[in-house]
Amino acid sequence: MKDREKEYKPLILVTNDDGVGAKGLRELIDVIAGFGEVVVVAPRESQSGMSHAITIKYPIRVILVREEKNLKVYSCTGTPVDCVKIAINQLLNRMPDLLVSGINHGSNASVSVVYSGTMAAAIEGGINKINSIGLSLSDFSKDADFTAAKFYSKQIIEQVLLNNLEKGTCLNVNIPAGKKEIIKGIKICRQTDGHWQEEYDKRTDPQNCEYYWLTGYFNNFEPDAEDTDEWALKNNYVSIVPIQVDFTSFSQLDRLKKCLKL
Amino acid sequence: MKDREKEYKPLILVTNDDGVGAKGLRELIDVIAGFGEVVVVAPRESQSGMSHAITIKYPIRVILVREEKNLKVYSCTGTPVDCVKIAINQLLNRMPDLLVSGINHGSNASVSVVYSGTMAAAIEGGINKINSIGLSLSDFSKDADFTAAKFYSKQIIEQVLLNNLEKGTCLNVNIPAGKKEIIKGIKICRQTDGHWQEEYDKRTDPQNCEYYWLTGYFNNFEPDAEDTDEWALKNNYVSIVPIQVDFTSFSQLDRLKKCLKL
Repeated sequence: MKDREKEYKPLILVTNDDGVGAKGLRELIDVIAGFGEVVVVAPRESQSGMSHAITIKYPIRVILVREEKNLKVYSCTGTPVDCVKIAINQLLNRMPDLLVSGINHGSNASVSVVYSGTMAAAIEGGINKINSIGLSLSDFSKDADFTAAKFYSKQIIEQVLLNNLEKGTCLNVNIPAGKKEIIKGIKICRQTDGHWQEEYDKRTDPQNCEYYWLTGYFNNFEPDAEDTDEWALKNNYVSIVPIQVDFTSFSQLDRLKKCLKL
Repeated sequence: MKDREKEYKPLILVTNDDGVGAKGLRELIDVIAGFGEVVVVAPRESQSGMSHAITIKYPIRVILVREEKNLKVYSCTGTPVDCVKIAINQLLNRMPDLLVSGINHGSNASVSVVYSGTMAAAIEGGINKINSIGLSLSDFSKDADFTAAKFYSKQIIEQVLLNNLEKGTCLNVNIPAGKKEIIKGIKICRQTDGHWQEEYDKRTDPQNCEYYWLTGYFNNFEPDAEDTDEWALKNNYVSIVPIQVDFTSFSQLDRLKKCLKL
């Protein structure tokens, strides 16, 4: 027993964007508990759609809300990316071996990766050379069934911990909604080309002033491309997209050099 | 005169992340006024560091704050990306010919593109197949000297309007601080590999509770790479990086398929 306790325990940083009280986070803690020493730093409130936002104008506060053997849970007033930054810089005593963000209530496939706070936290891990996994379930409901998501999350976390991946590998994992039995397996994919078509809901308040609610629907520009994450999800596969943050459009570099008279 | 008025006037959407009252926005309006019909939709307050955040939990309000010939200025309670979305969906009567975001007070070169609200607005334009330019001056001060920035911004806007570029071309333009005379020209570059090293400033409030301010400095991982935006800026060139939003790490796709046992 003593020897077992001396074994190296991976340090795993956990965060999300649905907030410290979200069901998806509790389910993730449940999955991850056996893998090592777990430190959760999650936003106090939902930060859905916060993308890679960081808090510059306001101070950030952090509260320890739960402490057990191999588990600490902090609530943070900042964004998901703030949670990662403050964890690495102030709360952890060494760099984590793994960062896991989620399990998000709702898909972050295709261009949603750009808007997602869950994925931004994972990407921030990657930027800091920490292997990172963003986990999302294609079900927005608060009391979504995470059974399948937990099963596949565990498998993927295990594989990332076991393999000697390139430092800073970041994975965007999406799990289809529905029963575990209908899921056919896991596919490594590329990001689908698509975009969100906005349809603002314009209303008038009791003071007769107009206001807008953001709504919209997703447009898939390549619904038949079998190597994309949206195709995988639609066909009941778990999708994994490896992520990088070089925004350079290399295909345009030479063309611009030729056509712009600068 | 009548014939001139009938000429096609490009519709130009302008936004920023420093807010509708920022000097950089006024300077940009000044530059852009001659180019066509200008509609500004800018955040009511500074939204620096808001990245690609969108407002989901709160309604958005928009006020027309200025109207002149060929110029409308709206103030919006949302993020820079909200400003673009609501402009396209509610405020404009046709898709703009060009989107220009800025002029930002502070550089958005290298990995700062990930955190920047200015660049997120430009990227949102690109996602919507609008040619878009994000303009940033490497000077954070409120009363920065925009003389050089205006000179080069005008030149770049003109070139983008004149050339038949790929629809949705998005450019990250950074202009060095300092006098116009020291700037050597414009370089088309790739995004520098680097990251922000955080150093939180931990303080105690009058109630004896701890809080943190985000601070930090930029680490350039390839300071000698002459094809990067940071190198260009350091050597007094204006940098232009063409931007795309496919986050897929194509170099990792095959490797992951081989090494993960899924």
